[in-house]
Amino acid sequence: MISLSNLYHVVEAMVPLYAAMALGYASAKAKAFSPEQCAGINHFVAVFAIPLLTFRMISSNDPYAMNLRFLAADSLQKLTALAGFAAWARLAKKENALAWAVTIFSLVTLPNTIIMGVPVLEGMYGAVSDSLMAQTVVLQFALWFIVVVFLLEYMAAKSAVASRSQLADAEAQLDADEEEGWPSALRILAVAAKKILKLPNTYSSMLGFSWSLIAFRLHLKLPPIIDNSLSIISVSAVGLAMFSVGTFMARRKRFILCGYKLALLAMIARFVVGPAVMAATSLAVGLRGVFLRVGIVQAALPLAVLSFVYAEEYNVHADIMSTGFDFNTLFPCQLIFYISIKFCITSTNQSLISAGSLWAFCYQFLLHSSTTLC
Amino acid sequence: MISLSNLYHVVEAMVPLYAAMALGYASAKAKAFSPEQCAGINHFVAVFAIPLLTFRMISSNDPYAMNLRFLAADSLQKLTALAGFAAWARLAKKENALAWAVTIFSLVTLPNTIIMGVPVLEGMYGAVSDSLMAQTVVLQFALWFIVVVFLLEYMAAKSAVASRSQLADAEAQLDADEEEGWPSALRILAVAAKKILKLPNTYSSMLGFSWSLIAFRLHLKLPPIIDNSLSIISVSAVGLAMFSVGTFMARRKRFILCGYKLALLAMIARFVVGPAVMAATSLAVGLRGVFLRVGIVQAALPLAVLSFVYAEEYNVHADIMSTGFDFNTLFPCQLIFYISIKFCITSTNQSLISAGSLWAFCYQFLLHSSTTLC
Repeated sequence: MISLSNLYHVVEAMVPLYAAMALGYASAKAKAFSPEQCAGINHFVAVFAIPLLTFRMISSNDPYAMNLRFLAADSLQKLTALAGFAAWARLAKKENALAWAVTIFSLVTLPNTIIMGVPVLEGMYGAVSDSLMAQTVVLQFALWFIVVVFLLEYMAAKSAVASRSQLADAEAQLDADEEEGWPSALRILAVAAKKILKLPNTYSSMLGFSWSLIAFRLHLKLPPIIDNSLSIISVSAVGLAMFSVGTFMARRKRFILCGYKLALLAMIARFVVGPAVMAATSLAVGLRGVFLRVGIVQAALPLAVLSFVYAEEYNVHADIMSTGFDFNTLFPCQLIFYISIKFCITSTNQSLISAGSLWAFCYQFLLHSSTTLC
Repeated sequence: MISLSNLYHVVEAMVPLYAAMALGYASAKAKAFSPEQCAGINHFVAVFAIPLLTFRMISSNDPYAMNLRFLAADSLQKLTALAGFAAWARLAKKENALAWAVTIFSLVTLPNTIIMGVPVLEGMYGAVSDSLMAQTVVLQFALWFIVVVFLLEYMAAKSAVASRSQLADAEAQLDADEEEGWPSALRILAVAAKKILKLPNTYSSMLGFSWSLIAFRLHLKLPPIIDNSLSIISVSAVGLAMFSVGTFMARRKRFILCGYKLALLAMIARFVVGPAVMAATSLAVGLRGVFLRVGIVQAALPLAVLSFVYAEEYNVHADIMSTGFDFNTLFPCQLIFYISIKFCITSTNQSLISAGSLWAFCYQFLLHSSTTLC
């Protein structure tokens, strides 16, 4: 049986996030903030608040006490998905098969860990999830987003050659490469690295991880005066980010930019395939108990904001990615979804996992459709 | 003797505030944020973050356990200053004597309680100061800012009659009043109340105070889910406000807009006269120990941001008020000032109060002058 306390913990963790988002939505709808002013808040979140939060999160995580089984399950989930979608891309032989592969890979395996993951999972499973989320964040920023940017850069370079378009950067790279013979993987990697190095979060992740390596080896701690200077900004990250998502949603002309069929596929990818693959790889590497549950629930979180940012920057299925955001409007459905998923995976009968997820998903999609159609 | 731990507590409380301000200053100087984007952040602070922080602060303060002696000292300081400056305004018989009286009254008696007062005083005197600051905030918002707006409105109405200028609101009021006979004090009070009711902070103060009256009588507490929804935004107030002050300072053409003589007078008013009057009225009502110290130090905080906002809105000595902000740039001087003042008022020899304040002030002013001149 799902207890009232279970229900309350999930509600307690999620309501403040949605309160901040609703405030942003209402503010932008009421035109209390101009689009440029909203951009200012968003810029503050992206450049200062989230990078500082990421640094504090990663730097306070003991890198010598990582849960290797959890990380193995997470990595295996992403590798399985990547290999699967790459194989499908090859077999499909469509022109934009790789773009689809990258989009589906991002949808399936890259959840919103920092903004939603930490508060929601802490509400559901307590402090144990904090450390696990920090470990996921390290890998996500230090490895997986680099893979995504690498693939997007590869596509951009390929399409630049095909169309001789005005991608000045890529073009210059390709010209240089042509003299040498196309674009080598190494060179694309360099371009991808350059992109990644423009993101403040990359530096904060790397610095945070480096500091954690030193600090936990030598038993050092950040002096409170420095930690407080970072936290005076980083504490604003979650509230401001959700506020910003709210203003973004209010300013869009309509939801479901990509049509219902693709929206359905996107939601299946994010909320069924993702957790299902994670459940499978977790069970495969022998992950059990609360670690298994945290693994599955974090895989069922909404889309990582950065995935949407990249999709928009490279103009690769940004419409589908933005649909990932729509889920945020459906607070009651989302609530039911997380309560269901928590119920399913805590129940002793493991076979309920898929059935429960599927039920929650269908319920939520029906509600989504009816809300949007009304 | 001033101990290292004393020093450290003040530094620890102030460095994060200045880190946030420096970040704002550097961001605006580096043009990482456009003026409109800065305005967006400032608007968020003014409309959501500070009002919610004010609400949480006031609503968590037990109104049935207020320190009446502390409030009496605070009120007496303001009444003394108001009466003194009003008398001076009458005696001086200058055309703008009342404007000067309001400006000096604001400078002398209205410190920045919410953004700087709470963290700095908590660093210096611990949690006991939180409740005292909340009590000061209640009176400041529920009474003293209304008095200031009333006087400013009175001047605006007077000058509208004198010059038949285009103050549409005031004019309409006056026309109505002329039929009846001047604008009556009651009518000016109504206009002032209207102004005050446009400020989100007024609502949050009143709501917070009303809720505290109910909650502490009936032993109710805000449900964590509501409190967390408020705090997800309110935690951003201090960092964002200091960031915003930093961007504001970076965008000004020069410091000391009002000239050195007036700047000197403004700083004497804020950092010597204010605490000195507070010390006198505190001793007069029998305030002793930590309450006396908190009273004096809070009276020596930088200028209330709202005083500057009003001065700019009514165009009454905004240049002098903005100089109140300049003090924020002088972190090392300010640090020495607070450490000195703490040292002086904790020392058993009470006569050191005035001498110490004066010394700290002179030191800081010399540094100020040399910094600005270089």
